[in-house]
Amino acid sequence: MNKEIRKIALLTGGGDCPGLNAVIRAVTRTAILKHGYEVIGYKFGYRGLYNNDYIPMTTKTVSGILHKGGTILYSSNKDNLFDYQVEENGKMVKKDVSDVAVENLKREGVDVLVIMGGDGTLTSARDFARKGVNVIGIPKTIDNDLAATDLTFGFQSAVNVVTEALDRLHTTAESHHRVMILEVMGRNAGWIALHSGLAGSADVILIPEIPYDLDRVVNKIKQRSNSGKQFSIIVVAEGAKPKGGEVVVNKVVKDSPDPIRLGGIGNKLAADLEKRISDHEIRCTVLGHLQRGGNTSAFDRVLSTRYGVAAVDLIHNRDFGKMVALQGNKIVSVSLEDVIGTTKTVDPNGELVRVAQSIGVSFGD
Amino acid sequence: MNKEIRKIALLTGGGDCPGLNAVIRAVTRTAILKHGYEVIGYKFGYRGLYNNDYIPMTTKTVSGILHKGGTILYSSNKDNLFDYQVEENGKMVKKDVSDVAVENLKREGVDVLVIMGGDGTLTSARDFARKGVNVIGIPKTIDNDLAATDLTFGFQSAVNVVTEALDRLHTTAESHHRVMILEVMGRNAGWIALHSGLAGSADVILIPEIPYDLDRVVNKIKQRSNSGKQFSIIVVAEGAKPKGGEVVVNKVVKDSPDPIRLGGIGNKLAADLEKRISDHEIRCTVLGHLQRGGNTSAFDRVLSTRYGVAAVDLIHNRDFGKMVALQGNKIVSVSLEDVIGTTKTVDPNGELVRVAQSIGVSFGD
Amino acid sequence: MNKEIRKIALLTGGGDCPGLNAVIRAVTRTAILKHGYEVIGYKFGYRGLYNNDYIPMTTKTVSGILHKGGTILYSSNKDNLFDYQVEENGKMVKKDVSDVAVENLKREGVDVLVIMGGDGTLTSARDFARKGVNVIGIPKTIDNDLAATDLTFGFQSAVNVVTEALDRLHTTAESHHRVMILEVMGRNAGWIALHSGLAGSADVILIPEIPYDLDRVVNKIKQRSNSGKQFSIIVVAEGAKPKGGEVVVNKVVKDSPDPIRLGGIGNKLAADLEKRISDHEIRCTVLGHLQRGGNTSAFDRVLSTRYGVAAVDLIHNRDFGKMVALQGNKIVSVSLEDVIGTTKTVDPNGELVRVAQSIGVSFGD
Amino acid sequence: MNKEIRKIALLTGGGDCPGLNAVIRAVTRTAILKHGYEVIGYKFGYRGLYNNDYIPMTTKTVSGILHKGGTILYSSNKDNLFDYQVEENGKMVKKDVSDVAVENLKREGVDVLVIMGGDGTLTSARDFARKGVNVIGIPKTIDNDLAATDLTFGFQSAVNVVTEALDRLHTTAESHHRVMILEVMGRNAGWIALHSGLAGSADVILIPEIPYDLDRVVNKIKQRSNSGKQFSIIVVAEGAKPKGGEVVVNKVVKDSPDPIRLGGIGNKLAADLEKRISDHEIRCTVLGHLQRGGNTSAFDRVLSTRYGVAAVDLIHNRDFGKMVALQGNKIVSVSLEDVIGTTKTVDPNGELVRVAQSIGVSFGD
Repeated sequence: MNKEIRKIALLTGGGDCPGLNAVIRAVTRTAILKHGYEVIGYKFGYRGLYNNDYIPMTTKTVSGILHKGGTILYSSNKDNLFDYQVEENGKMVKKDVSDVAVENLKREGVDVLVIMGGDGTLTSARDFARKGVNVIGIPKTIDNDLAATDLTFGFQSAVNVVTEALDRLHTTAESHHRVMILEVMGRNAGWIALHSGLAGSADVILIPEIPYDLDRVVNKIKQRSNSGKQFSIIVVAEGAKPKGGEVVVNKVVKDSPDPIRLGGIGNKLAADLEKRISDHEIRCTVLGHLQRGGNTSAFDRVLSTRYGVAAVDLIHNRDFGKMVALQGNKIVSVSLEDVIGTTKTVDPNGELVRVAQSIGVSFGD
Repeated sequence: MNKEIRKIALLTGGGDCPGLNAVIRAVTRTAILKHGYEVIGYKFGYRGLYNNDYIPMTTKTVSGILHKGGTILYSSNKDNLFDYQVEENGKMVKKDVSDVAVENLKREGVDVLVIMGGDGTLTSARDFARKGVNVIGIPKTIDNDLAATDLTFGFQSAVNVVTEALDRLHTTAESHHRVMILEVMGRNAGWIALHSGLAGSADVILIPEIPYDLDRVVNKIKQRSNSGKQFSIIVVAEGAKPKGGEVVVNKVVKDSPDPIRLGGIGNKLAADLEKRISDHEIRCTVLGHLQRGGNTSAFDRVLSTRYGVAAVDLIHNRDFGKMVALQGNKIVSVSLEDVIGTTKTVDPNGELVRVAQSIGVSFGD
Repeated sequence: MNKEIRKIALLTGGGDCPGLNAVIRAVTRTAILKHGYEVIGYKFGYRGLYNNDYIPMTTKTVSGILHKGGTILYSSNKDNLFDYQVEENGKMVKKDVSDVAVENLKREGVDVLVIMGGDGTLTSARDFARKGVNVIGIPKTIDNDLAATDLTFGFQSAVNVVTEALDRLHTTAESHHRVMILEVMGRNAGWIALHSGLAGSADVILIPEIPYDLDRVVNKIKQRSNSGKQFSIIVVAEGAKPKGGEVVVNKVVKDSPDPIRLGGIGNKLAADLEKRISDHEIRCTVLGHLQRGGNTSAFDRVLSTRYGVAAVDLIHNRDFGKMVALQGNKIVSVSLEDVIGTTKTVDPNGELVRVAQSIGVSFGD
Repeated sequence: MNKEIRKIALLTGGGDCPGLNAVIRAVTRTAILKHGYEVIGYKFGYRGLYNNDYIPMTTKTVSGILHKGGTILYSSNKDNLFDYQVEENGKMVKKDVSDVAVENLKREGVDVLVIMGGDGTLTSARDFARKGVNVIGIPKTIDNDLAATDLTFGFQSAVNVVTEALDRLHTTAESHHRVMILEVMGRNAGWIALHSGLAGSADVILIPEIPYDLDRVVNKIKQRSNSGKQFSIIVVAEGAKPKGGEVVVNKVVKDSPDPIRLGGIGNKLAADLEKRISDHEIRCTVLGHLQRGGNTSAFDRVLSTRYGVAAVDLIHNRDFGKMVALQGNKIVSVSLEDVIGTTKTVDPNGELVRVAQSIGVSFGD
């Protein structure tokens, strides 16, 4: 019954994130070199599991990928096998096809499924666990907003990219006496804006957790002007919103005669500030996909490797239904049942916000 | 009459550009250390000249600025003293205030004015030369589209930034089987798109000089799909346009109820491709101000230093009304009268385009 | 008696370290903006305190320094005022001049002295505390080997530099089928080698805490050869040593006829391996000072800012004789009396070493 | 007789150099996509040609390598088939085995051999041309010292690495009031030292072409001290030498009891300066292999691609025995017979040296 583990499978779901390849490498190497497991990798997340589309994983497959962003297993953003779009009688319908996945795992002799993903992907992981699949979860969110883990890989890499962008904007802001706005990722949580704002010397940091008052932002800019600083840098998370206002969706309107793009919060803020500030030009940059790509930072390579090895430790100990996590400096494991659906947001009264306020950063509140 | 040169003044006009500080440093150091000139720097370009707002320049002023983007003298984008907005009898009117500038130079005892700028700024430089001011021009355009010089500083720094962005987009494009579009600077000339497209392994490069056919772009993407490459990278200059189409202006509509942003060519292309390509997601990133900022590349630091030293050589030789330029490997000087108003665009039949085509890059033509 | 705090002084001691300027900025801004303290900065560490050589610190003084390595207050490596070299009657003698320092502080009206430094510098801090000076310590060691704090700033910046160097060496190693050795900092502790070795995909990591057996290193290289990997990357901490061997001092013999350099452990290892490995060339690079310089990483800018703000919090609470520290994710304070003289080394049986071993890294043991 | 070209072979010889992979990619893609040639790649340079050890090259083989340093074809440093070490009757002897190579080419049906390498490698290329082999040369030297071409790929990448190192050393030099020496590549020519010294704000640049006078170097440091600059940065090419002195060989003495390293010119200079300068510490860093590795710069990726395409153009035009070269902005071809054995050194009276002197750089002369 407690049969020996011989074969494990990996899959990556959701948006790509620096560190995924480092996890894939660590899991694969540890599984093969330390325990002699066979390893396969499903392609495109759950879609590959459904289609039984996989590749065998060897130490050669994972050679030279440690530093690379993205995922060599590919990923897809939306596929949920418990509510999956399939064609039936010529029509597209949504249905639960998770049994197909379970069948595939059985037929291939996969003993454990290692799933890297964010809240949505891990919800399915939990649901597969409930169906009796041996599952190990590895938390992946560039936004760092997963509960139960202090840090997720990819986050620090994104903070590096944003900080470098802020460093760049400084030279132009200063040369032209401008207010430069940088819109960054963070729909529900302002971690990226907060960390990179601190690291990149932002004057104003706007995050979802602290609705802002436009007057306060204007005051901060004017106060800087009065003290001789003729430029200001604002970093704004995409989910930030004015007090009493709504989140502004940043999207392309495809069916309009002209291709237009409804500006997100960054552009809204620029438009709002232009009406209030006359002696500085206002400019907004939306960083977008550049935050996800490129090489994984040294920090995230180490963290990802730790996660990967810990995941195999759990497998070896037959401790399934768990997600690896970082708490303080320690790698621990938590039950998937406990972590789903909880978001970790910035505490408006927490240390980091207080640190920023202490050195003079305004949150527009 | 041929009085000895004792004092020179610097000013920087137009958009900021990596390398300006390196030029300022080279001019200042050479002027002081080699010839014993006194040096001052007008702030905010021509506006500072009009307001007689300047700072004395010493070797200390220019210490530690070689690598920094931006300009320590600040810049402004639009000020033309030959058609300048001033208040008169309570109304804003446009008038020629260039005599005020000439007066300021005389009163301060400035023998030569060194002007760093693009076509607009250098047009004024020529006009001041016609009024008898001893002027030296230094070409500045990040777009590299100034005639009479093979290369302008800042261009290679911008190409580095764009290439790094393309490197980043590759990992996401590949992981998600996407078509990623990167919109870059280049209103009239596609130099940045062409060089960075070559360096960043773009599959399609769209530039103003070669109007594109959407069908050809679609074909290139499908042809890659068919040969197993499930992603494509497109770099598009902001001035690129479809055959028979217009340039799409990328701007914010400030007075709309929602703050909206009329998408530029990148977003238009994304919208157009989405209607034609079903098996890949399409994403567009607009790089914007990030291309101008940050540290100056090693290449541009050397080029800027060469320009700065050459400008002082011209001063020492009393060879005024000239602009320094790079032709082949040589620093030369050309008459300001000859260079104004001419733009250097990419030759659609030139070597670089042919090189790109040889390795399989499509220009959509 | 419990007189109000009005003036604080800063000093930086020991080797320079990325993050010092970020701490200086955070302390200065928080002290001035939040509490209205006056701030001065002694130059060159304790030497400046002895000579009463200081500068007033304002928000302007600390503007634009957040990202810069080094210290705007300068530092010196060896000055201990409790055993200080002074001239007396024409001879250089060592004596305790700490009373001069205390006098200077009193005369200048300095209420609290904030000292950034490593174990040596903080030992003096404690000794000044014992003399009744209000002292706050901020831990500084690029090696991350200070007890009582989980992380010191500068460490992650150094790991980034080393990791980038390892990335570079890979391409050459692979192209030429070489064994490349990189000698990095870490006289007593292997933290930098361990973290960067993990992040930079080293095959062998040699650290002071785990004396190595040359045979094992040779075996690892041969085993890689046999499995088709014709190159190996070794990262070695300067304090690493063979089993039963001594630490090899990396120093220049200045009085020799030729200027010669006694190779450190990296060169020794290269020489030793050359006698044992015939089918690969062996090359050693000593990274040296490049590990300390350059820009501070985003991570360290945040950590340093947190330390700086926390230090001022301690001042405000009159909680003197303490050092700020990071434990888990929390900034805490510990007594200077408790932390001096204790070193935090890598646990040979700890998680990180085990993680590295799990993915196949050899420690030569 | 003038038979159609159907198959070409590539090989890379000498030290690895950023840009080799970009050339390999451009040649392979152009040959296949534009002309339908078959392409093979010999491994390890001439050694692979002798052993007939090659791989077929497809567009897939060269996918994803544009930015990577090193060479996917591997390289070896010393193999000369006209004077090759072979075993004969149990002894190692040197003999001309070039006929074996010619036979291999014939047997494989290779019509043209494309050889990337420096002076040594290209000398053999010429010798094979003399034997009737259709040969095209592509100049490769990171030192940029090949005659007949204005620029070689890899050079600008190396200058970037050195410049970044100089930027790093500045922060430490300034914080500790040190003289920092950086020894860089350049045995016969000082191009890397000169360009990176200019870009990295060196105070002293020592190159092989301008023997230095130690007194002058000391004076420069003292003069800076007197003017308030308490640190100096010296960049020294490995082939630099004092007036009347010899080049100092930087090598490891392997047979000594202790592993010792005869310091190169950087360490010698440090030792010499320590005897003359008492108020600054002197430190030397030898950059070594870090200059060759890592990612290829955007500039070199473009230049390499141009070379690669031009090489295939020559093949298509049956214009053999030539080397591609850059003259001014133009890619041209020159006869291999004309270029062998000539070195391009820095002109001590040329523009760049004069530029450096104008801004106050000392060459120690």
